[in-house]
Amino acid sequence: MIQGIGAAAGVAIGKAFVLPAWEWDVPDRRMEKVDLAKEFERLYEGIRTSKTEIEVMKNEIKETVGAEESGIFDAHLAILEDPVFMSEIRGIIERQYKAAEVAVKEAIDHFVTMFDLLDDEYMKERALDIKDVGNRLLKHLLGTPDITLPADTQPYILVAKELSPSQLVHLNPDNVLGMVTMAGGKTSHSAIMARALGIPLVSGLENKLAEPLQTGDMLVIDGDEGLVYLHPEPAIVTRFTELAEKQRRRKEQLQLLAAVEAITKDGVRMRLAGNISSVKDLELALKHGAEGVGLFRTEFLYMDRSTFPGEDEQFEVYRQVAEKAGAHPVVIRTLDIGGDKQLEYFELQEEENPVLGYRGIRISLDSRELFRTQLAAILRASAYGKMKILYPMISSLEEIRGANAILEEAKQDLTRRGLPYDPEIQVGIMIEIPAAAAIADLLAQEVDFFSIGTNDLVQYVLAVDRMNEKIAHMYHPFHPAVLRLLRQTVQAAKDAGITVSVCGEMAGDEKAVPLWLHLGVTDLSMSPQALLRVKHYVLNSDSRESKEVGAACYRLSTSDQVESELVRYAHELEQERLGK
Amino acid sequence: MIQGIGAAAGVAIGKAFVLPAWEWDVPDRRMEKVDLAKEFERLYEGIRTSKTEIEVMKNEIKETVGAEESGIFDAHLAILEDPVFMSEIRGIIERQYKAAEVAVKEAIDHFVTMFDLLDDEYMKERALDIKDVGNRLLKHLLGTPDITLPADTQPYILVAKELSPSQLVHLNPDNVLGMVTMAGGKTSHSAIMARALGIPLVSGLENKLAEPLQTGDMLVIDGDEGLVYLHPEPAIVTRFTELAEKQRRRKEQLQLLAAVEAITKDGVRMRLAGNISSVKDLELALKHGAEGVGLFRTEFLYMDRSTFPGEDEQFEVYRQVAEKAGAHPVVIRTLDIGGDKQLEYFELQEEENPVLGYRGIRISLDSRELFRTQLAAILRASAYGKMKILYPMISSLEEIRGANAILEEAKQDLTRRGLPYDPEIQVGIMIEIPAAAAIADLLAQEVDFFSIGTNDLVQYVLAVDRMNEKIAHMYHPFHPAVLRLLRQTVQAAKDAGITVSVCGEMAGDEKAVPLWLHLGVTDLSMSPQALLRVKHYVLNSDSRESKEVGAACYRLSTSDQVESELVRYAHELEQERLGK
Repeated sequence: MIQGIGAAAGVAIGKAFVLPAWEWDVPDRRMEKVDLAKEFERLYEGIRTSKTEIEVMKNEIKETVGAEESGIFDAHLAILEDPVFMSEIRGIIERQYKAAEVAVKEAIDHFVTMFDLLDDEYMKERALDIKDVGNRLLKHLLGTPDITLPADTQPYILVAKELSPSQLVHLNPDNVLGMVTMAGGKTSHSAIMARALGIPLVSGLENKLAEPLQTGDMLVIDGDEGLVYLHPEPAIVTRFTELAEKQRRRKEQLQLLAAVEAITKDGVRMRLAGNISSVKDLELALKHGAEGVGLFRTEFLYMDRSTFPGEDEQFEVYRQVAEKAGAHPVVIRTLDIGGDKQLEYFELQEEENPVLGYRGIRISLDSRELFRTQLAAILRASAYGKMKILYPMISSLEEIRGANAILEEAKQDLTRRGLPYDPEIQVGIMIEIPAAAAIADLLAQEVDFFSIGTNDLVQYVLAVDRMNEKIAHMYHPFHPAVLRLLRQTVQAAKDAGITVSVCGEMAGDEKAVPLWLHLGVTDLSMSPQALLRVKHYVLNSDSRESKEVGAACYRLSTSDQVESELVRYAHELEQERLGK
Repeated sequence: MIQGIGAAAGVAIGKAFVLPAWEWDVPDRRMEKVDLAKEFERLYEGIRTSKTEIEVMKNEIKETVGAEESGIFDAHLAILEDPVFMSEIRGIIERQYKAAEVAVKEAIDHFVTMFDLLDDEYMKERALDIKDVGNRLLKHLLGTPDITLPADTQPYILVAKELSPSQLVHLNPDNVLGMVTMAGGKTSHSAIMARALGIPLVSGLENKLAEPLQTGDMLVIDGDEGLVYLHPEPAIVTRFTELAEKQRRRKEQLQLLAAVEAITKDGVRMRLAGNISSVKDLELALKHGAEGVGLFRTEFLYMDRSTFPGEDEQFEVYRQVAEKAGAHPVVIRTLDIGGDKQLEYFELQEEENPVLGYRGIRISLDSRELFRTQLAAILRASAYGKMKILYPMISSLEEIRGANAILEEAKQDLTRRGLPYDPEIQVGIMIEIPAAAAIADLLAQEVDFFSIGTNDLVQYVLAVDRMNEKIAHMYHPFHPAVLRLLRQTVQAAKDAGITVSVCGEMAGDEKAVPLWLHLGVTDLSMSPQALLRVKHYVLNSDSRESKEVGAACYRLSTSDQVESELVRYAHELEQERLGK
């Protein structure tokens, strides 16, 4: 038994397939006679093929996993167009008469070494990207075949030193029972993809194995606990086989809940909506029983293109969403770029601390035309369903007033143009900056609803960047300070008579339901994947008992105590349900 | 009259001296015969001379301006040791038989172009550093003399496209009346240095001048308002001459207040202490009447060296500070590296958002030995004065308990070794993370005092990186949310019967005094430069009236309203004092 890091949940039992590292042997070939034209032709042909391959991968990921994850490949495409990298390669070919593949190899080595030396995490990641893209280009120049995975008839547990996004993309999730990597942690690109694909992953086994795993080794992996059993005893195999079967059955049972209302045993009705980025996401959310959309992240409409989407184009998407959602409300968040979300065609300065930087409403208020166009498109869609507008990253009254002034312009413009819209459209704000929670009573006077974005709120309140592996363990949604700011925000909303919902990842954590019941929050919006789990929990809950648990959490003074209490209660509920 | 950015306060009247840009003309000289040894010798000689020069500058800045500012030059020294940059230079000499200066020039151009292309603010700054260092090295290789500034007999206003720290270092503050730069803003390195040197600076004139300023142009500059008057009319000259004279007289009068107690007209006694980084800072603070040290930033003891300072070495410094402070208390903050403060010999990963990263107590709790050594040194110094210990970046009870456990070990160890220390030494925490303010009542149960660090607190509460020029205008210490968290923290301290002081930049802003009086905060700690200004304000205040103003601020709902109210009152006080 080896203890690693549980990077994606679930258990798996099967034989290891060890993925060889993707490294090519490049002989130091010089051009036989100086034929620059031919080498350049080979180089550009290789680049074209590589680009097409990456584009295809990107689209596959977008379809199967999600738009956010597919963005990983934009960085790869950018490298193939990077003037510095390309001029280095051309220079080696031209001046040293080396073959294209040798030039590519040397350029990769040069940049990877340089970026590694810079001792800058951002640059080291660029180095990894350069290696990944460069190896792809080399593969084409050398005519080497792709590494073949075992035939589809034989499901396996994939074992690798590290997995790059471009390696994960071709996996057949039905065939890969689980994955094990030596490097990486919970926040690596591969972990994000594994969770999205629903494949169990244990990472961080570096230096923990007496000898390397071999293809054919029998493994049991537990992605919840971060455990790998090598050559497991029959008892272990039996236990985990049962566990895996239980997981499968539970999945089936959960799906049956899609059509059921989310209502506690004693009759408290909750409304579970979906967080979506696209029409496709909405379909999944509805399949999982979402009652509308609590958060439509519109920035994905703006990605993967070369110019801003126009009003008509946006309107088409928003209208589709409005119509598909039917009578359910759809909350559209206005453009929230900046931070870690960038657009190729809208240049933002690199920032020392992007999370504390120029993003969300801060950009929209500076880019009035852009903002007005989006608001006009949303307004037009409001004639086709129950739309609401949500401003991100609000920290002051002035920002709300500034945004509303632009909304007013958009309305007047539509009236002039004779286009229909809902004149009573509701406007709300994200409560995700501590300042907004602290002055929630003032902000509540100016809006129709609050949507609490716990992801950013927790980051700012605790001063912990959740993507920073070094301190990710300090990212505690159940920190007493977070709980207090949630209470203060909800109280302010209630006092002002406006609605309040929660749309951060906490909303998709069923353990947190007692907190919401205690606070009197009945609207939650979460990833489509979480909907059935949370509904299952709600259906098993008694609201009076849950409220007591929630209240007890508010009397505790550390994150661990709160989390333990919620875990204890979730366990108790489950035992009760099973009649134990 | 031209409107720029007021980057350092004060007014100046005088003639312009336009600093030529530091660019060298390097002829493309190849070695006459291949004599690599000689070129390498020239190169290394140039590097040695450049390094010595930079070291000298660094020490000068450290003495005259401060340790923090001197750190700017560490980046420059690092470049002269950078393996990638150096191997590029050597490669050009070796492979292309070019002279050392040509190789240096080409390497600079190569890296500057590359880093500029990367479109990454951090890399662009590195490019500026490379240019600055590279030009210094070129200067030595070419034997070009330094640009001479006008003779000391002729005070002038320095005008430049941009000023690098290494250009500012040789300025004689008595001779440079003021400065004007085309580039830059309030947060540039040159602005920081100008403020520290007390030289008025107007920046950001790029594209605002009909034609370039010429040496000899008569100028009046107003660093408070960000104005430059070119060829001013006699009336303007008279007005600003009077203003400048008034500023000078006011400075003299202020110094007289050093020996006076900080007490309002109606008898409320405040205690103004100094924020220091060194014994030298303490001397300045005491000269300005500081009643002890409210914040001793110990990280500067750890900088500019190649290993961690040992217990004895730290003890010597802490003891000196304790003794010099006499009966006054000295609050020592334990090591607060990470974020933007790095140690050369303690490698921390580069982080995407360092301000939300691995820093302060988070590092100390992971580096027990390091932390225990510092605590032991502080404890030993506590036998020589009234020392207090302050933990930075606290966000939870567990961190306080973890730190105190290590403190206990250090105490026991000193007892074993028979070394004296104050067994009753007080322990406090920085309140600078929103979570700490939100659970201040819980934290107050475990410590002897709070010190509110407004700089970081404001950043986190508003989600605004104050060093980010794009959003620096959103950094509002007087935001209602900040005011509320301050009130909550002070209330929690009072309820628990512990002391609370404020040590962020807000404490050095005299306008804020009504807030402190309203909240009942009487302990402030600030930069030595601010002490007399704040004391002057306190001496002119009536506490009842001030408290009303403070209370009124708490009824306002935007930052601008609060700031206006405080500005209005400060103005009223000043008018009153002048008997108008």
